[in-house]
Parts: sequence; C-alpha cells; structure tokens
Amino acid sequence: MSSRPAPLPRTAFRHFRAIPTRWMDNDVYGHVNNVTYYSYFDTIVNAFLIEQGALDIVQSPVIGLVVETQCNYFRPLSFPETLDGGLRVTRQGTSSVRYEIGIFRAGEESASAQGHFVHVYVERASGRPAPLPEALRRALAQLATAN
Amino acid sequence: MSSRPAPLPRTAFRHFRAIPTRWMDNDVYGHVNNVTYYSYFDTIVNAFLIEQGALDIVQSPVIGLVVETQCNYFRPLSFPETLDGGLRVTRQGTSSVRYEIGIFRAGEESASAQGHFVHVYVERASGRPAPLPEALRRALAQLATAN
Amino acid sequence: MSSRPAPLPRTAFRHFRAIPTRWMDNDVYGHVNNVTYYSYFDTIVNAFLIEQGALDIVQSPVIGLVVETQCNYFRPLSFPETLDGGLRVTRQGTSSVRYEIGIFRAGEESASAQGHFVHVYVERASGRPAPLPEALRRALAQLATAN
Amino acid sequence: MSSRPAPLPRTAFRHFRAIPTRWMDNDVYGHVNNVTYYSYFDTIVNAFLIEQGALDIVQSPVIGLVVETQCNYFRPLSFPETLDGGLRVTRQGTSSVRYEIGIFRAGEESASAQGHFVHVYVERASGRPAPLPEALRRALAQLATAN
Repeated sequence: MSSRPAPLPRTAFRHFRAIPTRWMDNDVYGHVNNVTYYSYFDTIVNAFLIEQGALDIVQSPVIGLVVETQCNYFRPLSFPETLDGGLRVTRQGTSSVRYEIGIFRAGEESASAQGHFVHVYVERASGRPAPLPEALRRALAQLATAN
Repeated sequence: MSSRPAPLPRTAFRHFRAIPTRWMDNDVYGHVNNVTYYSYFDTIVNAFLIEQGALDIVQSPVIGLVVETQCNYFRPLSFPETLDGGLRVTRQGTSSVRYEIGIFRAGEESASAQGHFVHVYVERASGRPAPLPEALRRALAQLATAN
Repeated sequence: MSSRPAPLPRTAFRHFRAIPTRWMDNDVYGHVNNVTYYSYFDTIVNAFLIEQGALDIVQSPVIGLVVETQCNYFRPLSFPETLDGGLRVTRQGTSSVRYEIGIFRAGEESASAQGHFVHVYVERASGRPAPLPEALRRALAQLATAN
Repeated sequence: MSSRPAPLPRTAFRHFRAIPTRWMDNDVYGHVNNVTYYSYFDTIVNAFLIEQGALDIVQSPVIGLVVETQCNYFRPLSFPETLDGGLRVTRQGTSSVRYEIGIFRAGEESASAQGHFVHVYVERASGRPAPLPEALRRALAQLATAN
C-alpha cells in the first residue's frame, strides 16, 4: 500500500467542468463519500462527449462500456463546495480509451482526488467491440497528453 | 387523481440556484429519475441556509428534520441539462417551515416539476422540538411569499 | 402543517419486500436521507411489476411515467437496518394507478414512513396516454384495498 | 490496458452478503451503473464491521478513511437481480487494511465485477493515523487470505 501517487496539478489536465456538490454527496462523516467521486467522473466524461457531438445517449450505434475505474483520495471535500473536474486522455487504443480525472477544490492547484476510467467501445446492438468512431477520435484529440 | 396543480412560473420564487444534472440522474428511460428531484430540493434548501449563516452542519445546536416531502412532475428533464431551482417559503410556524421548490429548464418560464419540503426544528442532542433560530428566521424572511 | 397522517399498520398493505439499507443511505445526521425513501418506493413498485410479468423495462410498449410522489417521515431509520416495504393500490383509473408504500422497521407494526406514487401510462414511442395493460391490471388486483 | 485481471471465483472470498439491486442502480443503458458497485463495496465492508462490533458510526474514536478504490467490470448486471458480495482482506498494515470485493450473479461461480478498497485508520478528532483497533483486528482475521 506504499505506491500512492502524488496529486496532479491543474496544468496536467486539458478540459475542466464545474461540479457543484449536493447535500447527499456528504456521508455520515460529513465529507463527500468515496462513491460519489465516480459520479463526478461519469458526468465529466459523458458531458464532454455529448457537448462535442461524440455521444448521443439514445442514438449512437456504438457505446462505451466502462471496464475499469479507480480513484485515489488525498483530502476530504464537503457540500456545499463547488469543485472543478479536470479531464485528460492518457491512452487510446483501437476500441478503448483511458481518461484521467482530477477533482480540485476552488483555488487549489493540486488535486484533492484523482482517478481513471477506461471505456471499451462496442456495438450497442451486438455488444461486440467496435473501433472508436471518428467524431469521438476528434473529441479525444483535444484531451490527449504526452503521459 | 384529478387535483394536479398547475406549473408555477419563475416569478413565484424568491431565490434561484443552478442545478447541473449528472449522468446518474438519468434512469433507464433516459430522463431524470423521480427520486433525483428530491436531491435537488435538499441541495437548494440546505445550500441557501448554509450560505445565509443559518445552518452549520456540524455545530448547529438545533437542526431541521424533514417530516414531509412531495413533488409533481410535469415534463421530463435529462442529463446533461443545467436546471434552475427556485425556492420560496409559503408557511412558517414556531418550529416548522414549509419550502416550495420549482425546477425549471433553461429558458423556460414555467416549472417542469415542483414540490414542497417541510422541516421541523429539533434540538440536535435531545430530538425535542425547538423554535426556529433567529438567524434562520432572518434567512427565511427573504423567501416569504404571500401565498 | 397540522394535517399529518397517522402511521399505517402492516395490515394495511398487501405485498412486502425486504429493503436492506446501504451505507450511502445515511446522511450527515446519521439517518436514512429523506430522498432515499423514494428509491425504496421505486424499487418496491417496479420489482413487483417485473416479477408479475407486468413490466419489461426494455420491451414494454407502454410504460408508467411518475407524475406525483409524496412521503411522510415519522421516525428515523439507519444503515445497517434491513427494512420491510409494504405496497398497496388505493386508486386505479383508465390509464393511471396510485400506489401507497409503507416503510417498516423489523419487528415494528406501524410504519416509520409512508407515501404514495402515481403512475400514468403512456405509449413508449409517442408519449401519449395509454390504458393500463391487461397484465398490469391482473397484477394490481392483488394490491387493491377498500380504502 | 492489457493487464485486465481474471474474474475471481466465489472460493476466493471469506464472507458473503446479499445485495438486492434497486431501480436506480440501472443507468440509461439498462445496466447497473459503474458508480453503484462502489456503494455495494461500502455497504459490504461497513455492514461486516458493524455486525462484528468493530465499527460504531457515531462513537468509534478511530475511523477508517478511504484512500483508494478500484473496480474491474466483467459482465453487466441489472435490476431487479439480487447479487452476492464476497469479501476478503489481502493486506493489513499497522493502520491500514486492503479489502477485496467480488460481485456475483446468483448461481454463478465467477465474479461479474471485482475491486478493492483501502482504509487508513485515523483518530476521529485529530485526523492523525491510528493503529487498527483490537476489535477490528479480530474481525479482519476472519477475512484474511494467503494472497
């Protein structure tokens, strides 16, 4: 359990989205529950894809299935803070993409939590792997980093 | 089931808060699930109270217990919309307050959903009813309506 | 705010389902959050309909839209309790049905919370009101009460 | 993205808990959302600790902070299934413990999803690291595996 990563700075990310917390995000200890960060991840990734025209929830013939998620928690956060979610892409394959997300407190330069999220694309009807659609590739190009 | 209320206009409300939807808000039918509206209600009410200095989640010696909630749903909403939540107070007693909340789609004048939320104030330690604290009464005065 | 109903007894309900609570159900005050009760309502109603063959989430040509929900909270509940959800139908129209749900603590005869849930049936494709399907009517007959 | 682990069998786990799904667990694609698995993890771990007398949510002078979570998703699950959650401990330090959780479909021998969850224990008041309490160590001994 010694391999904890260091918090990433804001400059590591290519796209940001404000995440206002909700009352229910706080658990019994008064902090945003560990589960809730993944709903931020889902929201940041999918809102970006929809806004870029790379995902139509109802119509897209291929969809991304989540095959792995992970998160490290560095410092607690609490409702009613509004957070910033940073997004980047660190790996991209024929039919898969790995997003990394950082969650930042307003005014802070290093992430309070960070994690990743791997999508594998499949045909919606058959469930078979499918190449990343062209509109998605164009959107992902904006998020690519050297890392 | 004939007594459905009419949707309220934005002008019925005294305070507004932006509510960005989240991916998980959508249910299997592709719309914000009926349950999720109540998490908007909770968030609108409690964020207002905290910002007004009328609620300290950890320290307040008296806290509001929710004794009744209700919602009417007029038109479906979906992620990734950002909604507006309107807030007003329609009744206020010695130890209780009734909030009404309207949920509006951006650019629309009449509510897509609306409901209420009744808080009864109790001493945190004993659970016994307590009068509304003075700071709360001052905050509520901003939300009062004739209705 | 004087019209609070009395808690219903278990005998008022026709069908029961166990509801194990989850860690996230508790809010910062250490009790099941008011929002979460509605996820119990949804679960009790829809699981009953699916088990009775009256709802196929993906295929049913008509689906129930939730147009109103309401809940009264009498006594707090907490994770890790396992609760019992009681279900009955108190009104049924051509294209609508009103469910009432009671949430009981194990071993207790009167509800800790109770509420209702009104479905209006529509054609999935057009969104136009539709008569309750025959399989649904048969399922609802098991839940009907004199009230 | 080539290092996907193989699904674990039921025999890899030491403790099981039934997890009935809820309507809201399904997302717009009709499957349990990736976020929701972590609410199963939280529930399985904390319910076990409470039942073993190793956690008192309100009183315990030391509490476990979640510092890392991770999940691999192998096969989709859907409401209204009742799932089985398996639990084991694979590493235990002076003030930390790593749980592994497998989520199984009824009647299936290999996990549909699996992940881990690392708790670091701290004094509730100061937030400083604290050794695992004796009652916790006794509970964890039941979950230990060679792996």
